[in-house]
Amino acid sequence: MRPRTSPRSPETYMRMALRLARQCPGLPYPNPWVGCVIVRGGRVVGRGFHHGAGTSHAEVEALQDAGPRARGATLYVTLEPCCHHGRTPPCTDSILRAGIREVYYAMKDPNPLVAGKGARLLHRHGLRVRCGLGSGEAFALNEMFVKFQSAGLPFVTAKVATSLDGKIATRTGQSKWITDEAARSRARRLRGEHQAVLVGINTVLSDDPHLGPRIRGAKEPWRIVLDSRLRIPPDSKVVKSGKCIVACTTEASPAKKARLECAGVKVLSFRGKQVPIRALLRRLAREEIISLLVEGGGEVLGSFFDLRLVDRVCWFLSPLVLGSVRSRVAVAGTGAGKLDQACRLQNVTIEKAGNSWLFQARVTPAARH
Amino acid sequence: MRPRTSPRSPETYMRMALRLARQCPGLPYPNPWVGCVIVRGGRVVGRGFHHGAGTSHAEVEALQDAGPRARGATLYVTLEPCCHHGRTPPCTDSILRAGIREVYYAMKDPNPLVAGKGARLLHRHGLRVRCGLGSGEAFALNEMFVKFQSAGLPFVTAKVATSLDGKIATRTGQSKWITDEAARSRARRLRGEHQAVLVGINTVLSDDPHLGPRIRGAKEPWRIVLDSRLRIPPDSKVVKSGKCIVACTTEASPAKKARLECAGVKVLSFRGKQVPIRALLRRLAREEIISLLVEGGGEVLGSFFDLRLVDRVCWFLSPLVLGSVRSRVAVAGTGAGKLDQACRLQNVTIEKAGNSWLFQARVTPAARH
Repeated sequence: MRPRTSPRSPETYMRMALRLARQCPGLPYPNPWVGCVIVRGGRVVGRGFHHGAGTSHAEVEALQDAGPRARGATLYVTLEPCCHHGRTPPCTDSILRAGIREVYYAMKDPNPLVAGKGARLLHRHGLRVRCGLGSGEAFALNEMFVKFQSAGLPFVTAKVATSLDGKIATRTGQSKWITDEAARSRARRLRGEHQAVLVGINTVLSDDPHLGPRIRGAKEPWRIVLDSRLRIPPDSKVVKSGKCIVACTTEASPAKKARLECAGVKVLSFRGKQVPIRALLRRLAREEIISLLVEGGGEVLGSFFDLRLVDRVCWFLSPLVLGSVRSRVAVAGTGAGKLDQACRLQNVTIEKAGNSWLFQARVTPAARH
Repeated sequence: MRPRTSPRSPETYMRMALRLARQCPGLPYPNPWVGCVIVRGGRVVGRGFHHGAGTSHAEVEALQDAGPRARGATLYVTLEPCCHHGRTPPCTDSILRAGIREVYYAMKDPNPLVAGKGARLLHRHGLRVRCGLGSGEAFALNEMFVKFQSAGLPFVTAKVATSLDGKIATRTGQSKWITDEAARSRARRLRGEHQAVLVGINTVLSDDPHLGPRIRGAKEPWRIVLDSRLRIPPDSKVVKSGKCIVACTTEASPAKKARLECAGVKVLSFRGKQVPIRALLRRLAREEIISLLVEGGGEVLGSFFDLRLVDRVCWFLSPLVLGSVRSRVAVAGTGAGKLDQACRLQNVTIEKAGNSWLFQARVTPAARH
């Protein structure tokens, strides 16, 4: 039987833990957002949340907050407690040592080093352990972390800004500006919400974009450029950002590579004629980049959609019609031959952003890697 | 000074008249929607609305309703009273005869035969005449009539159903179905709200569409096909609808023309290699078609946008991404060379229609004929 919802129900405490999870200032990546509440005799005696890699886990923070009052208490946490030595010791040890009697956790840890083992360990030591309360919200909160842990790839958001008829530039190539300043400011905000922003070399050559959030206090994302032959100018804004990764092939000139490395660029070299995008993403995941914003151009976005590497779309629709088969499309690539091969979207939300409409959606699981 | 809003203010009576206007069952086209309220001593003594071409105007109906109580009363009407003999005698005569003392009308009649003359005539006969109360709503109610009267062209709605990236078919040509049944049913409803639905011959040849609203009781629109060389099969559904107009050029075979005419089709022939769309629309306006729904395909919609003949868009966006430069675009044609030549939209509304989103907007005046 599910517990009844009352002011002191487990649901209430788990919601409290989920609210705490969101208090992390900035992004905890590559770690998840986690919140924890400890309750004894109907009173909250400890609270904690995770502040990011290298700092205490939420459970440890809450246990420290509770002190001796944790003995015999119930612990509510939004993610299964870890049982492995990572950057910090295992949380299961602290929970056992503190004398916690019961643990509610919202979702299993997708990290294969934990993945149910944490819960089993606590259970073996005689604790009551329950999973699933608040799982929907917990999964939504950590969708990037889940993707990263389960697929070994970053969570990919495709960011697009088009006219109503899906164009990013007129037939003569004019693209400044399809959307107004308010919509572009909203789009820049997305950059601050991701660890890295990726574009193709043509975008760098034609627009020389900054690719930063340009918001005071926002974390600067890595700028990643797909540039098989290293055509990137060493004085481009992304190079000068100081956080630039360029992905090229072994066919690129070693001298150019050396010059870029001198300018502080991290150059990743892949075999073949083109940068293998999936291998690049695996490599970025190994560098603990778990969230990637792909901004274009059309061919780059086409490749990501063709390879089913897109998890989410943030699509700005401007109230314009450009027309013509020659104006530039947002998503090129091979595309869908049949409608049942199309990339299908779900959980659509629409909000106004300046003079445009921001259409956000998740790619349905069948259409993802 | 504007009159205060109170339960008995002129605003209240004009709103009443606007509500009455909407009571017309079906479309009054080519006539406008008009409502009228007569008030004496703070009491409504007469009500009327226009039921469509050939029937009494709203003022006459309201005056009949009021009878002798109209003497010395105030008349509120959503459109300037007419002063010319059309299908019915001038309303100004009836107003003068009934002894009305004051007239509020929401907007000037855009019909050049009236256009202020009705109001001036009443004023010359000593009535107090005031224009503009409720004009915004009155204009919105009659935007099709205003376009028709002021430009001598039908009001054109472009109906489009695309993937999020603006495609109407995959690169292999598959288009059934981009949107789900609920969205398509909403789209068919649009047909019943227009006097005519227009497509290009390629749409007829590839899909053999019915082009009817398929709603019990809905008025059947005219089906108009752009078909320069009369390739339309005499057994196609649009021909069999019994309300089909085919626009061709003088280069089409006279035998084919005769065969279609035998099948009940109205064939309109134009000089040149291609049907001149603007001339066709003028011709349709002369046939008292004031509202036209253009459904495609891409080349036809492209021509309408290029010629700045579109007044409104009803765009169904399906949560799909098709990708590829070779998948078919919704709006082909020449398109905008520069962004300032793009067709700009305003008054955007978005509603859910099945699994899709219906994006409705008006074309900004600068981008219209």
